[in-house]
Amino acid sequence: MANLKIALAQLNYKVGDFERNTAKIADVLFEAKQNKTDLVVFSELSVCGYSPDDLLDYPWFIEKCEQSLEAVAMACDGIAAIVGGVMRNPGKGRQLQNVCCFIHDGKIDHIIPKTLLPTYDVFNERRYFEPGNQPQVIEYKGTKIGIAICEDLWDIYNDFEYLQHPGEDLVTLGAEIIINPSASPFHIGKQSLRNRVFAGQASRFGVPVLYCNQVGVHTELLFDGSSRAINATGEVAAQLPSFDESVVYLHYKEGEFIAEKSVPLETDDIALLHQSLVFGIRDYFSKMGFKSATFGASGGIDSAVIQALATEALGANNVHPVLMPSMYSSDHSINDALELSRRLDNSSITLPIEDIYNSTIKTLKPIFKNLPFSLAEENLQARTRAVLLMGISNKFGYILLNTSNKSEMSVGYSTLYGDLCGALSPIGDVYKTQVYALAKYINRNQELIPKNIIEKAPSAELRPGQKDQDSLPPYEVLDEILKNYIELKRGRDEIITLGYEPSTVDKVIALVNGSEYKRYQAPPILRVSSKAFGKGRVMPLVGKY
Amino acid sequence: MANLKIALAQLNYKVGDFERNTAKIADVLFEAKQNKTDLVVFSELSVCGYSPDDLLDYPWFIEKCEQSLEAVAMACDGIAAIVGGVMRNPGKGRQLQNVCCFIHDGKIDHIIPKTLLPTYDVFNERRYFEPGNQPQVIEYKGTKIGIAICEDLWDIYNDFEYLQHPGEDLVTLGAEIIINPSASPFHIGKQSLRNRVFAGQASRFGVPVLYCNQVGVHTELLFDGSSRAINATGEVAAQLPSFDESVVYLHYKEGEFIAEKSVPLETDDIALLHQSLVFGIRDYFSKMGFKSATFGASGGIDSAVIQALATEALGANNVHPVLMPSMYSSDHSINDALELSRRLDNSSITLPIEDIYNSTIKTLKPIFKNLPFSLAEENLQARTRAVLLMGISNKFGYILLNTSNKSEMSVGYSTLYGDLCGALSPIGDVYKTQVYALAKYINRNQELIPKNIIEKAPSAELRPGQKDQDSLPPYEVLDEILKNYIELKRGRDEIITLGYEPSTVDKVIALVNGSEYKRYQAPPILRVSSKAFGKGRVMPLVGKY
Repeated sequence: MANLKIALAQLNYKVGDFERNTAKIADVLFEAKQNKTDLVVFSELSVCGYSPDDLLDYPWFIEKCEQSLEAVAMACDGIAAIVGGVMRNPGKGRQLQNVCCFIHDGKIDHIIPKTLLPTYDVFNERRYFEPGNQPQVIEYKGTKIGIAICEDLWDIYNDFEYLQHPGEDLVTLGAEIIINPSASPFHIGKQSLRNRVFAGQASRFGVPVLYCNQVGVHTELLFDGSSRAINATGEVAAQLPSFDESVVYLHYKEGEFIAEKSVPLETDDIALLHQSLVFGIRDYFSKMGFKSATFGASGGIDSAVIQALATEALGANNVHPVLMPSMYSSDHSINDALELSRRLDNSSITLPIEDIYNSTIKTLKPIFKNLPFSLAEENLQARTRAVLLMGISNKFGYILLNTSNKSEMSVGYSTLYGDLCGALSPIGDVYKTQVYALAKYINRNQELIPKNIIEKAPSAELRPGQKDQDSLPPYEVLDEILKNYIELKRGRDEIITLGYEPSTVDKVIALVNGSEYKRYQAPPILRVSSKAFGKGRVMPLVGKY
Repeated sequence: MANLKIALAQLNYKVGDFERNTAKIADVLFEAKQNKTDLVVFSELSVCGYSPDDLLDYPWFIEKCEQSLEAVAMACDGIAAIVGGVMRNPGKGRQLQNVCCFIHDGKIDHIIPKTLLPTYDVFNERRYFEPGNQPQVIEYKGTKIGIAICEDLWDIYNDFEYLQHPGEDLVTLGAEIIINPSASPFHIGKQSLRNRVFAGQASRFGVPVLYCNQVGVHTELLFDGSSRAINATGEVAAQLPSFDESVVYLHYKEGEFIAEKSVPLETDDIALLHQSLVFGIRDYFSKMGFKSATFGASGGIDSAVIQALATEALGANNVHPVLMPSMYSSDHSINDALELSRRLDNSSITLPIEDIYNSTIKTLKPIFKNLPFSLAEENLQARTRAVLLMGISNKFGYILLNTSNKSEMSVGYSTLYGDLCGALSPIGDVYKTQVYALAKYINRNQELIPKNIIEKAPSAELRPGQKDQDSLPPYEVLDEILKNYIELKRGRDEIITLGYEPSTVDKVIALVNGSEYKRYQAPPILRVSSKAFGKGRVMPLVGKY
């Protein structure tokens, strides 16, 4: 049996930044060659980043991608590599394929197209690619290697079973190792899912599996890395860190992986959520070329958590909270917000909105006449705050963070063009009950977020004495109904069977359906659940439901 | 050779409104039976509407769909019908299929799944459906009928060639007629494309083709109907109207269609554009339960065209223009806007924004200090107007129409949360040069839009003396570059080869790429081109391009 030294390279790519991506790949190849490595494994679509979306419609993009693969091949002098990219389909059907190239000694020896093209939730691969249909095994230094790209190993772990089974096909052809270059986005619960898939497939096939994921933000998607090597028994031989670039060397000997290094993976969901959001904000800002953030600091828990996350991600100097009290703001809101900024060392500014509000009401008088105070006046306050925040954003280049949580976004308790504004929504996929858990986690070592912010009853403070719970069920109930409806796609009757009040369920579902139009215009949301608002959830606006 | 009397039913369905959709179908069946019809043809996904998007993830939705198909079957006593819907896939793979049922005498005799599932541009069918793969021909009253659903007949008319050819397969099986139930959205140029496809396929196969489209708005998509019957020679036997429900009776005799009625189709692009937008606004409002519209009336050509279209679609009483002059508004803007409202019989209101603007600047003084006037102050004006319009919308239930055109949306010359607001964007897929053509068309019988509005140089009037053409190439040039980049997906070098200034091309492409983040939060746009912003164009925000 052959021996191989393999490097597993978990890198952070940027969509379309071919120079940066190929330079990163070349650096790892250079180091690996010094370390006398036989094979370096990179992730899916590594030269172009995952996913380029409709940039794939542009011929120049495909040319750049193919040129980059050629450039990587040139760097593979005396070493082999598996590198992902997009290439033109030499056969009939869709014009492109999602491929991994097996490169050796300066040339692309094999082109392996992906067979199973995920087209559900946030995945859209059938939009672009023709699937592969000719399984092939690669013999390298006496070892038969099978390459199954990402979804190719998830064939039986979905809501439906695919008609093809690429992993099985490779084993039938004699594969001794299966390598799985991936672009596998993070969500809470994904680690245990991966345990099931990779340990399951390795032991089912009786061959070791090498799962190579990437790291980084792609608009709404967070790639967490967490790559791993699994032996034929299903046992983990190596784990790579989450949300960090890393290269790990493995020795493949007598059919087994032995790793030079392995890290434990975080198993606490809230710790992982915190880690993902801090990384998400940081990488989003870094890749967009942004430095500083601003947002409305209301003294409530959502903006407090945003402030703590942003401070950790960007540094205290780069976080600019803006207090915008109105005549309905309570003293504790203002004091709590000021105290939070003191503790986090952010310099905040206070801009009262009452003058603008009064001018606006006066301006609207010829049409509003003496009609009673209503939703219109509530929303005016939220929108006035957005005008100020965007003014600051435009003037100083600070990027507006949206502070809405998933519970509010779900039921439409946010004002379109008001608190629904922002360039990025860090907690738009985090339910209110999770926001509380995050706040407690942030305070794990010291009370960064003042206790009062966590303990007081949540309120939008848009009219006197308003409380969220006046018009919504308690968040513990609301969030469970929402999870059933949104994540688990259960209908009204099914949810009621679980023991919830029919009238509450009807109200919640009606609120969710009735606010699709707001979410249509919402900012990009960092996805941390299995079903986030955004590209993974496409609902008609015109429709009866 | 057999004789058949066939009714071609081009109806307006609403997504998820099973009661309404099946009632419409039953009404036509009832009438057709009175008229001694053998077969009634309805369009693709008629019982549930096209497309339900992720409502298809909900089991209750599929059950309702299957129940509706059963209900339609019950109504088919003594008559046959072809009706589209979604059913559970009895085999492996994705759980659903997009099917047409051949119903006869109270029961579903045949279930024909769609074979080619369009997954590009605005189509997403691979996200939901498993394709059919067993072609079958239906024998009914001595005639062999083949059913090819929508894309099934477009196999060789795309950027790529499909691996299957359902039409050919049906002819090989002996089909004497091919029926093509469709959900084929409108865009300028689609009629000639359809001529090519249907005349081409009919004459290629040597059999008549019956193309049955639907009518109506589905969020961004406009279905125009324009159904037709084509004989084996490729000649048109019947045409149904555009943007209108219609049922036409056809006699199929000795292998030929003879129609009881046929209408000429509009061939002038601008007339068709006008018709599509008026219909689009009307049907969008009707299906959403909206009655009245409001918008900012600037005295410019975009809002003037919106005002004329909305007045035609909703009635003069339901259109509420709001003039919001600032210190930078010219007298002619105000006068032109007032004159337009007089001519269209809309009652407008004038709400000057100077007071609010001054309060806002005063409120921002602690942070803006004495920094010079910049983009921030320009955008403040646009956002203040949005606050007023949304206040009116919230107070009176008027729906805000967005007034941005495609040229502006492309280059980002619109303010996010300012003039980019709105529940619907009627001209977001209409280039500025087309807006001028529309204005002239609207004035074809009388000068509804004052000549001055059409003739003056366009300006956002956000600072003294500002003109669009100060910072943009002339619209004739800009629009052509945009079309090349967006619709035709040509890259920089290709566009320069066509004879445009390299520096202009670079600038325009940079502006388009740099404003993806604004379009991410833009309102739904009525799609009238082959590549509109919205669900049909998915671009990464985080990326280098």
